[in-house]
Amino acid sequence: MFKAMAQRLQELFIFFFLAIFSRATSLNKPHSRATLPLEAVAHSYCLSWRLAVEANNVGGWRTVPAQCLHHIETYMTAGQYDRDLEFIVDQILNYVRGIVLSGDGLDAWILDVDDTCISNVIYYKGKRFGCEPYDPAGFVAWASKGGCPAIPAVLRLFKELVPIGFKVFLVTGRDQENLGQVTIDNLHNQEFIGYERLILRTRAYNGQSAVTYKSNIRKQLVEEGYRIWGNVGDQWSDLHGDFVGNRTFKLPNPMYFVP
Amino acid sequence: MFKAMAQRLQELFIFFFLAIFSRATSLNKPHSRATLPLEAVAHSYCLSWRLAVEANNVGGWRTVPAQCLHHIETYMTAGQYDRDLEFIVDQILNYVRGIVLSGDGLDAWILDVDDTCISNVIYYKGKRFGCEPYDPAGFVAWASKGGCPAIPAVLRLFKELVPIGFKVFLVTGRDQENLGQVTIDNLHNQEFIGYERLILRTRAYNGQSAVTYKSNIRKQLVEEGYRIWGNVGDQWSDLHGDFVGNRTFKLPNPMYFVP
Repeated sequence: MFKAMAQRLQELFIFFFLAIFSRATSLNKPHSRATLPLEAVAHSYCLSWRLAVEANNVGGWRTVPAQCLHHIETYMTAGQYDRDLEFIVDQILNYVRGIVLSGDGLDAWILDVDDTCISNVIYYKGKRFGCEPYDPAGFVAWASKGGCPAIPAVLRLFKELVPIGFKVFLVTGRDQENLGQVTIDNLHNQEFIGYERLILRTRAYNGQSAVTYKSNIRKQLVEEGYRIWGNVGDQWSDLHGDFVGNRTFKLPNPMYFVP
Repeated sequence: MFKAMAQRLQELFIFFFLAIFSRATSLNKPHSRATLPLEAVAHSYCLSWRLAVEANNVGGWRTVPAQCLHHIETYMTAGQYDRDLEFIVDQILNYVRGIVLSGDGLDAWILDVDDTCISNVIYYKGKRFGCEPYDPAGFVAWASKGGCPAIPAVLRLFKELVPIGFKVFLVTGRDQENLGQVTIDNLHNQEFIGYERLILRTRAYNGQSAVTYKSNIRKQLVEEGYRIWGNVGDQWSDLHGDFVGNRTFKLPNPMYFVP
């Protein structure tokens, strides 16, 4: 708690220092753009923050830095997030098309669910795109509605994987008891149809980190004989640990961090 | 070879398709910014490309997409690359300051050399920031001059690690026979002084991928009793494989890819 506060204070300090420094030095240089120096400084800082998050250089972070609300909102809603997803799915499909399937029904592919198959951006808009800390009850209330829209790029991937013959496993940290049926329905109403298995978190895995829980699930699949060709998630905890798969793909998510 | 050409053609096709699509749709919307639609499209594409590269979503790539020359040049030389490095080093130092060293002289830290400790941006400017393919002879000629400048952010990290008591190992794919002495001199003239060992590639490791070679080196360090607390490099091949360390940190490098 103190550590998080100290980090937030440090961020704010750096931000204001840069802002003042930028204003001071801006006296010497006329600005050719309409952008205010203060905005430019925040933009640059938030670019660095987001790149560091996506390359997994920031340890467990709890909230988006307050000064990056506008940056993240713009990123998530003005098109670049969608284009980044489409670009990554193109990369994944390049890889997929080079795979020769065995035909024994054991070629597997793993997809995470939240903000991989289906989107929570609408919910996170109400949480200031992650500037507010994780709210477990709020999230369950949202997820219980079953109204998460498909992420179009990942649905496109899914719809290529299934007919080729991949057994697609959807692996999620969502609680089976509370969210099992609504998640099945939500995936179905968003056209995720034809997957092999949806694996939700059962009581046996309560309290385990996502890395441990998902590693255990993948271990079981490998023990069943499956070859995990690919593994796609928006969290590094989807892609780290054991039996991660032949290739892993990290989708962008600058709104929250799952340890 | 054909695969690379096909990929390049695909990139160009996507680029022109997006460009035409953007011009077509732009008829309906006046542009509030001076940016041309064509430039905006290229910018957006190159943002996606760079993010995908930094999150390791693009398989072995050989050159920067031709349409991204301007984007990468601006990124590398106009300040954002430097700010991204400073941000990551701040994250690393947050981690470093939480480590309690054992005092037995076996707390180790690994740094890559090229574009981690010292910079090749001047050289890559002459290679159109990676739009031209890797030129082994050209690179050796450049490195033989011993004129690579320090990367200020990483020098700052280095100068904190050594006095605290970390044994810093510099591990590089540079050839020991041809580039050993000049690399020692270059690091020294750039104030990388006080590291434990500089490990260059000897003949025994010729032909090994960077992942295999560097994993072998780290294995030897672990067998000597060292605890690898951190591992910093600009390539994912610095950070993957075995004995990667307790935390790894990926520095940006959109100019080239080392398998």
